[in-house]
Amino acid sequence: MGKRTIESEVKLFNRPKMEKPLLIEGLPGIGYVGKLAAEHLIEEFEAEKFGEINSPFFPHHVSIDSGILRPAKNEFYLADLEGKDVIILVGDVQATSSEGHYELANKVLDTAESFDVSRIFTLGGYATGQYSKSQPKVFGVVNHPELLEEYGSDGLVIREGTGPIIGISGLLLGLGSLRGINGVCLLGETHGMLVDHRSARSVLEALSSMLGFKVDLSKLEEHAKKTESILRRMRKVEKLRKRRKEREEEVSYIG
Amino acid sequence: MGKRTIESEVKLFNRPKMEKPLLIEGLPGIGYVGKLAAEHLIEEFEAEKFGEINSPFFPHHVSIDSGILRPAKNEFYLADLEGKDVIILVGDVQATSSEGHYELANKVLDTAESFDVSRIFTLGGYATGQYSKSQPKVFGVVNHPELLEEYGSDGLVIREGTGPIIGISGLLLGLGSLRGINGVCLLGETHGMLVDHRSARSVLEALSSMLGFKVDLSKLEEHAKKTESILRRMRKVEKLRKRRKEREEEVSYIG
Amino acid sequence: MGKRTIESEVKLFNRPKMEKPLLIEGLPGIGYVGKLAAEHLIEEFEAEKFGEINSPFFPHHVSIDSGILRPAKNEFYLADLEGKDVIILVGDVQATSSEGHYELANKVLDTAESFDVSRIFTLGGYATGQYSKSQPKVFGVVNHPELLEEYGSDGLVIREGTGPIIGISGLLLGLGSLRGINGVCLLGETHGMLVDHRSARSVLEALSSMLGFKVDLSKLEEHAKKTESILRRMRKVEKLRKRRKEREEEVSYIG
Amino acid sequence: MGKRTIESEVKLFNRPKMEKPLLIEGLPGIGYVGKLAAEHLIEEFEAEKFGEINSPFFPHHVSIDSGILRPAKNEFYLADLEGKDVIILVGDVQATSSEGHYELANKVLDTAESFDVSRIFTLGGYATGQYSKSQPKVFGVVNHPELLEEYGSDGLVIREGTGPIIGISGLLLGLGSLRGINGVCLLGETHGMLVDHRSARSVLEALSSMLGFKVDLSKLEEHAKKTESILRRMRKVEKLRKRRKEREEEVSYIG
Repeated sequence: MGKRTIESEVKLFNRPKMEKPLLIEGLPGIGYVGKLAAEHLIEEFEAEKFGEINSPFFPHHVSIDSGILRPAKNEFYLADLEGKDVIILVGDVQATSSEGHYELANKVLDTAESFDVSRIFTLGGYATGQYSKSQPKVFGVVNHPELLEEYGSDGLVIREGTGPIIGISGLLLGLGSLRGINGVCLLGETHGMLVDHRSARSVLEALSSMLGFKVDLSKLEEHAKKTESILRRMRKVEKLRKRRKEREEEVSYIG
Repeated sequence: MGKRTIESEVKLFNRPKMEKPLLIEGLPGIGYVGKLAAEHLIEEFEAEKFGEINSPFFPHHVSIDSGILRPAKNEFYLADLEGKDVIILVGDVQATSSEGHYELANKVLDTAESFDVSRIFTLGGYATGQYSKSQPKVFGVVNHPELLEEYGSDGLVIREGTGPIIGISGLLLGLGSLRGINGVCLLGETHGMLVDHRSARSVLEALSSMLGFKVDLSKLEEHAKKTESILRRMRKVEKLRKRRKEREEEVSYIG
Repeated sequence: MGKRTIESEVKLFNRPKMEKPLLIEGLPGIGYVGKLAAEHLIEEFEAEKFGEINSPFFPHHVSIDSGILRPAKNEFYLADLEGKDVIILVGDVQATSSEGHYELANKVLDTAESFDVSRIFTLGGYATGQYSKSQPKVFGVVNHPELLEEYGSDGLVIREGTGPIIGISGLLLGLGSLRGINGVCLLGETHGMLVDHRSARSVLEALSSMLGFKVDLSKLEEHAKKTESILRRMRKVEKLRKRRKEREEEVSYIG
Repeated sequence: MGKRTIESEVKLFNRPKMEKPLLIEGLPGIGYVGKLAAEHLIEEFEAEKFGEINSPFFPHHVSIDSGILRPAKNEFYLADLEGKDVIILVGDVQATSSEGHYELANKVLDTAESFDVSRIFTLGGYATGQYSKSQPKVFGVVNHPELLEEYGSDGLVIREGTGPIIGISGLLLGLGSLRGINGVCLLGETHGMLVDHRSARSVLEALSSMLGFKVDLSKLEEHAKKTESILRRMRKVEKLRKRRKEREEEVSYIG
């Protein structure tokens, strides 16, 4: 019962061998774009979990799934992307306070540095209030001018203007730059109020083109189509409801 | 006047002997269901207080009762439930911040582990917006798949779907699972805006069936009936008030 | 530029000799009742400042008076109340967070204990939404049953019912009781939205009767009368404004 | 992966030689007055950056400019103001919590003291809800009565009345006074909702008169004129829009 510091805890189950890995972050955020994209990579490349983070800076709740309760976590996976070692960071929450965000981002960077991380890619969404059925655009920002040249030829659309990026996707790159770790933040256009698999697909297309790997995106496309069919049905029901109401009003006028 | 760390303090008045005790938590939450249930156990089994927690993460107020002021506390009791040693955690508050919730839950687990705790039961309410006069349902969630089998035969209704459990009832089990301590959270259906002794009774029925002990629940039932009689009277008064108003309006129309 | 802990700092300019002093607290709160009462004691008994508290838990602003800026502070004074040594705690702020409230209350208690404090009196207001022109009532609560008997004969009206006391007035006594320091909280009835010298006068009358000292309260009474005369004038102006408006409307009807 | 304390970090790239420097603070606040003024000094006197502050108490976002992301920072510059060594503190954010404000202000003071700082000038805005096209007034407050005499002859208009100054401009002087460092806070009148180069110009005029240096303020004046021309155009457009609407309504009446 000694003193317990209020501090996030990184637990590595093992220290897998990797060579100058990339770090890809996909924690929950706008439209769940980053989370969906990162989880898709984990599934497609059969990444293996090698560690997790528990933190007093997470929200004070637990999640339930089919009667099983589990604490909030962030998790580290290792994937082999066609010869490239990639650490993937996923999870069900971000920190609740500014202090917590900084502490967690620094713990993640500590861990990544201990594996000699070579570059960081953070994935997220960019709320537009509109749902794109075709091909959501992907914007990029980098944390070092060098990368603008390096990735410019990959058709990366650089986000114009100024403005903040909130949360871990921005902080990992901001604090990373203070440690000399370069990286890119890829933001997929998304509605903002809908879980958006299509935007996640766009983000992974941009990422795979930048990193030169291939990935089957059909499952994300399927999910996107399901979402759209649900949306269509909801709109149809709404339309019918309106029309019926109008007819009823006509009838009552006639009567 | 040395440095005082901002940290919860667990004070044990003595270290009673117990064998692989259970931990039952009933701190104030939705409908006060967990608190009422745990306090009922303390009363019925004449549990003895052996420790308390003071914490800077509690709200910054004190409570008054009959002119006596007392600081916010969480308290540890030891009960003998027909041969089973049970630590019961009760109190008048929960923490105010996420960090505080995590710190307190970990201190409670530290204490429970120091007594070689074997299993955790956390008791709480589940808001439905409706008051059940007959038999409020009790849902359960567990923090390890093993327990689903073990308690399935006790008629435990597992909570379907997903969703968070907020506060210490969830955290004790979530953080407990990280330490290898298994446990169950029992949530009684309750209105949410009313203190609900009947839901507490249901929760204790479920608990006693799972643990195989008997407990007299008549006092909880009495309290529930009192609450209901008060509610009935309030509704009657409201009805009379309405009817009188309608009559007055009739009279004024006639006049 | 070493590490700076986030911690309140108690600075004692000297350690005056005192014998089993009382601690009287009057920090700003409802109606400024406690602050006005404590500052009145400082003035009437020519108390001397012997220490102050600076804290990162205070609000992040400074106050200005006649062009001079000063940091937020709590201050310790020593008064001689007809032979009784009394530490008086005053200041311009309370803490902003729960953690800060607990930390500060504990620092104050550390300091008081280092002088062998014998009893604590905390002074405050009790909001009723009404301004009393005659004699605001004073309620008391104690942190130990013994004191109910001891002070009952002084005509102390014990606050009935339950309910919290928020802030340092409650915490000093609540945390004090954990250290075995007894004390009383005196709450003067007050409007809640007005600075109330009359309620402060009532509180000091109760305190002086309990402690058996005499204090000239005429300055508080003068201030109270000034406030009332301002209130009267404001009401008169408001009445005139209304009447004039009514006449104008009459005139325009005639026209 | 050792323990990482939640603490601001001051990084000095080098320790430039300076003699009893002044500290001038211009972090973002009301009307960006202080920031604009301090950045103007940096530009006009070709100040050199010699350090920066990273802090977990900053907001948890990063800023983007032309596709490059950078973490929130406060920065130290050294300027030679006609023979006077001046440390200038600028940046894009202030802390998010009270605790953070105190910690950062103390770190800045630690740094300034390590260079034997002789006096502090903090620059800011004072919201009036009105935009002044001619010459915004500048008010001053000091943290020691001595300074009232010293600067009174410079035509410093001392801010009358009482009231708080929120944020680092106040805290640096308040906490500075506890360390025996004297200083002045200069507040330029400003609208409050507009970036105000003209108020920044006024503040620098007051500062240069107090410190006896000359500075070309034409760039601030140019910016102020641009802002005003934009405001004029916006008002004209609004007027035209209104008039057109009125005419349309006339037409429809005629019809």
